[in-house]
Amino acid sequence: MSDDTTRHHDHQAPRPDCPSCPDRRDRRAGISRRRMLSSAGTAGVAGLVSGAVAGGTAGYAVADRAVPVTAVGATAVPFHGTHQAGITAPPQAQAIGHLAAFDLARGTGRTEAAALMRRWSAAAKAMTQGHAPACDDQIALDAGPCSLTATFGFGRTFFTRTGLTHRTPAALVPVPRFPSDAIDPKRSDGDLWIQIGADDPLVAFHALHVLQKEAAGAAEVRWQMSGFNRARGATSHPKTVRNLMGQIDGTGNPKPTDEDFAAKIFVPDSGHTDQAWMNGGSYAVVRRIRMLLGHWADLTRTEQEEVIGRRKGTGAPLSALKGAAETTPMDLNKFTRNGSLAIPADAHIRVAAPESNDGAAMLRRGFSYHDGYRTDGTPDAGLLFITWQADPEAFIKVQTKLDGADHLTRFIRHESTAVFAVPGGAAPGEYVGQRLLEG
Amino acid sequence: MSDDTTRHHDHQAPRPDCPSCPDRRDRRAGISRRRMLSSAGTAGVAGLVSGAVAGGTAGYAVADRAVPVTAVGATAVPFHGTHQAGITAPPQAQAIGHLAAFDLARGTGRTEAAALMRRWSAAAKAMTQGHAPACDDQIALDAGPCSLTATFGFGRTFFTRTGLTHRTPAALVPVPRFPSDAIDPKRSDGDLWIQIGADDPLVAFHALHVLQKEAAGAAEVRWQMSGFNRARGATSHPKTVRNLMGQIDGTGNPKPTDEDFAAKIFVPDSGHTDQAWMNGGSYAVVRRIRMLLGHWADLTRTEQEEVIGRRKGTGAPLSALKGAAETTPMDLNKFTRNGSLAIPADAHIRVAAPESNDGAAMLRRGFSYHDGYRTDGTPDAGLLFITWQADPEAFIKVQTKLDGADHLTRFIRHESTAVFAVPGGAAPGEYVGQRLLEG
Repeated sequence: MSDDTTRHHDHQAPRPDCPSCPDRRDRRAGISRRRMLSSAGTAGVAGLVSGAVAGGTAGYAVADRAVPVTAVGATAVPFHGTHQAGITAPPQAQAIGHLAAFDLARGTGRTEAAALMRRWSAAAKAMTQGHAPACDDQIALDAGPCSLTATFGFGRTFFTRTGLTHRTPAALVPVPRFPSDAIDPKRSDGDLWIQIGADDPLVAFHALHVLQKEAAGAAEVRWQMSGFNRARGATSHPKTVRNLMGQIDGTGNPKPTDEDFAAKIFVPDSGHTDQAWMNGGSYAVVRRIRMLLGHWADLTRTEQEEVIGRRKGTGAPLSALKGAAETTPMDLNKFTRNGSLAIPADAHIRVAAPESNDGAAMLRRGFSYHDGYRTDGTPDAGLLFITWQADPEAFIKVQTKLDGADHLTRFIRHESTAVFAVPGGAAPGEYVGQRLLEG
Repeated sequence: MSDDTTRHHDHQAPRPDCPSCPDRRDRRAGISRRRMLSSAGTAGVAGLVSGAVAGGTAGYAVADRAVPVTAVGATAVPFHGTHQAGITAPPQAQAIGHLAAFDLARGTGRTEAAALMRRWSAAAKAMTQGHAPACDDQIALDAGPCSLTATFGFGRTFFTRTGLTHRTPAALVPVPRFPSDAIDPKRSDGDLWIQIGADDPLVAFHALHVLQKEAAGAAEVRWQMSGFNRARGATSHPKTVRNLMGQIDGTGNPKPTDEDFAAKIFVPDSGHTDQAWMNGGSYAVVRRIRMLLGHWADLTRTEQEEVIGRRKGTGAPLSALKGAAETTPMDLNKFTRNGSLAIPADAHIRVAAPESNDGAAMLRRGFSYHDGYRTDGTPDAGLLFITWQADPEAFIKVQTKLDGADHLTRFIRHESTAVFAVPGGAAPGEYVGQRLLEG
């Protein structure tokens, strides 16, 4: 067997004995095993939190038993809803992320694309709820859902290739090339996009693998990238984490408690938009931003803090007094005793601030990445930058400003770019994108 | 700034304001933050486990609060000991693994290699105990140790390049090429090897990045691979997990309760070996095994089970009755009612069994990997196979048999190979390998 191309079996005709199309009995067994796990997880009082947490540094044996063995595994994020999961749910960014863009295969039109979205939605619904998908490879047979989400989006080219150009949202403009960009077109754009997030690496791989196999014949992987955040249960500080420059990242994100939080991120469900199928949806801007970690390490800590505008240890803005916290508001008009701006004129947080951009704001929810080493010995590492906004114009406005004025630009390289229209969540019985494809 | 090679600062002369060489005050702050975390973790009764575990599938919000936020982060694996960590400790394979082989730079002899091992040991000791290393980039400044381990080994070429050929252990033989191998020499072998394991992706990256930077000038990355296992807290079944073929893997591993467990894995501390510096050490065989997942998916479940010799769902051997468990002993002499062997003659577990190999056994403790897609659309995915044994002869004996007779061989490709002498653990005050380099 010297040829190892994939020969996909026929998804239309499941064979009872096929490992990828398990018979009903096997599927039931898989589900009941998961239910058992869930029951174990709720043996206490479901919905209430036990205050007692053992653990500590006394040795791994102690903490090993102290970790609830199924709490991470049993956590499920609802699939159906006004918005797709993976944007504001779960509230904490998942530990593992896979991004994959697909291009439609030749001969795939609107009908075939609709069938693909139906298959993808069914598989995503099953897996995110801890069930085996219809055509399963059983990699995650006894794993819980582990906060799995799968979020689907459409690139501009999707509309032309499926004869739906007239339904392209006006907001789905191409992101312009910025002067400092070093974009690889092969790792940019794409007809379709999936963002997978999960708190378990095996569950995340399984979801990616199943969705890729479901695409067989209809769409092919154009590019795929993987990244990470902190593990669940590893930190008491889950909402903002350090990026690979060692800086606390995400401090300036809109907060769910902000009055205009939803309006900034989601297309209003008001019928006033040009394409009603996007109501409740959002736009994702996806960019691979490599960090020049060698250059960065050559700076002193004070120099690094001046590039960002925040203290490295605490994340507090440089305008704040010692002892201030990450959440202390920045004061862009504060001067030091020497008469210079406390937050320098070219500091990242000043140039990126909504105050500097007519209030433009977006929700950043990305993943760090590390893909080995470059030939010069530096890590190929950085940030899979993902922002969510009701209109990509918010990103374009801020990035236009950053590219010219942000000191940080000298320590990063934008290597890929894409923007996707991410429709609202599917209602029960619906698949994601149905209002576009059958509307 | 168009050139982005790494310019390493001088490690011999820490600058107080350098982000990679924090001053004492900053280092103290880092440590006390971690101590605070630990105290929070042990607020209950340290060493005792709270029985109450909330969670369940009611929704992510519930389980979010149910996960003890620092239990995973605060878990520390001791650095000092008879054996290095990362072989049998922690007891559960870590969620994230990085393997990196280094070649010594020109001009690096025994003295410089000893200095490197001293720097690596100091950095590993600090990071595994949740402290900042001497030259830190602060990526994991407020992260706990997260079960971090760093395990160091020496390849055959290390001895010749440092003038220590006479101290090469007799057991450190080159692993022969097997007929089915498809080995890439550039991803094989190496003078030095580090295995990093941690339950948190950021902590694992940080350790790899710090150790690579500490090597600057003395050794360069030859190859680097990354992999994963289940997340901590995701599963109630942590010792054996499904591999990317969907099979439960590791069932046949020696158990710590076996009478001869230590003797199989570690070089006896008896002074009878040819190289006393290896007492308490072990040998690591490291192979990247790609799985031909397309071919695999073409088999029916029954066919897959016959390749392995175990049921896919439960992991029970095919010789066992229905309802048997993964732990049910296999019966190699069992026949089916049709008169054929219940575990086929070429089934993986039969050919690999100690009973088929004069008792040869080794501890497998690897990581799954997925490095994107190949040009034919199949995932570049499989197993970073790592076995630990008191003598690599055990691996060679079993692999020689497997390569000719194991049905599984047709569904995998061994793409890299390496073997390393992994010395015993450092005593307090010692660095790893000191008994070789200064003995």
